[in-house]
Amino acid sequence: MNQKIKIIAFDADDTLWVNEPYFQDAQIQFGEICKQWIAPDAVVNEHYKTEVQNIPIFGYGIKGFILSLVETAIRISNHQVSAEQIEQIIQIGKTMLSYPIELLPGVEETLKRLAPHYRMIVATKGDLMDQERKLERSGIAHYFHHIEVMSEKNNDAYLKLIRHLDVAPEAFLMIGNSLRSDILPAIEIGSTAIHIPYHIDWVHEKVEEFSPPKGRFFKCESILDVCQFLQV
Amino acid sequence: MNQKIKIIAFDADDTLWVNEPYFQDAQIQFGEICKQWIAPDAVVNEHYKTEVQNIPIFGYGIKGFILSLVETAIRISNHQVSAEQIEQIIQIGKTMLSYPIELLPGVEETLKRLAPHYRMIVATKGDLMDQERKLERSGIAHYFHHIEVMSEKNNDAYLKLIRHLDVAPEAFLMIGNSLRSDILPAIEIGSTAIHIPYHIDWVHEKVEEFSPPKGRFFKCESILDVCQFLQV
Repeated sequence: MNQKIKIIAFDADDTLWVNEPYFQDAQIQFGEICKQWIAPDAVVNEHYKTEVQNIPIFGYGIKGFILSLVETAIRISNHQVSAEQIEQIIQIGKTMLSYPIELLPGVEETLKRLAPHYRMIVATKGDLMDQERKLERSGIAHYFHHIEVMSEKNNDAYLKLIRHLDVAPEAFLMIGNSLRSDILPAIEIGSTAIHIPYHIDWVHEKVEEFSPPKGRFFKCESILDVCQFLQV
Repeated sequence: MNQKIKIIAFDADDTLWVNEPYFQDAQIQFGEICKQWIAPDAVVNEHYKTEVQNIPIFGYGIKGFILSLVETAIRISNHQVSAEQIEQIIQIGKTMLSYPIELLPGVEETLKRLAPHYRMIVATKGDLMDQERKLERSGIAHYFHHIEVMSEKNNDAYLKLIRHLDVAPEAFLMIGNSLRSDILPAIEIGSTAIHIPYHIDWVHEKVEEFSPPKGRFFKCESILDVCQFLQV
């Protein structure tokens, strides 16, 4: 095992379990409802505009996602959207809150191998109750000391997190699929980060090229490679 | 100081700062929008019915509050509510997210006197980003080790909290205005609780009479009395 690392934090959505495809599916259903006003392939962009405006006030997660869908429908329909259609839009969101948790390949085996050697936590954005419930339903909650739902994943938030965890930056390892939220800030505060790309990303999480520091940034194809990196 | 207590947790809304009056004000505005379908004094009850149904899926906080307002308007208007009216309803909620933080009397002095002797945290329900932002704007964030936004405040949640804080139940003191959320569960897990009633309560937080255990339940008129209880 790696003597330096004391705490491993895992991002949740699209790192431990499937998430983004459900959001994309919801947007397809939303496009269907709004097709009388806008082409289905343009609807994602309109919704994204609303979401980006709303993130500073609503934060991340499904409740803000739904409210942004409703606001987008009102805007693109020029106030023509009906109460029935708004009801359908809210229902899309409610259905998302009960979607099944599908672990990504290798997740359970990786956690099982790491558990005896490291304290592990989940560090994720999103709605508090939704993320807690997903972890509970995932069947892997017992591997983690606890879940941290973060309102933002920037340098300040990671500094607050490691202070709260009472751990030095160099003893903290962050693992996730988002360069912007999981990798860059963790590296910038002096921690180590492992990037496990997911095949689709939310456009909000995209970053330009970056120059990772030697010895504190690693990219894995599969979460199982983390075991090799940590020599367990 | 009290040698037994190591960590003091404060509820936030209506314990540290004014909150419930803003919700009641929002409901008055909502009643105004819906008055063509329902009497203003009946609207609160209709909204409450929707909220109680939604709490298990949305949890607490302003985003769920807004979504429940929208759903209530759709239901009580029998799908007659217009997109303009729904836009106004969402705007009521957005305005709530920027309301000023008004500390309750004695809060700052109490925190100042307790700070040298105890580790203090904020333990609150609600939306993560909203509660973090309110604490930041309150000017009292520096007195607290951190804020815990909890999806529910029941026995399990408090047990998780004290395990996470690495503190024994008897070394934990919870202070808040809600018997149901702040006092009963803290007492039931073996901790001490101080109840500081607020002049209005959300109906959801009401409880029947209960028989408090001797020595672990106290009621204060003002938060300043906490200093006396803790002998600082």
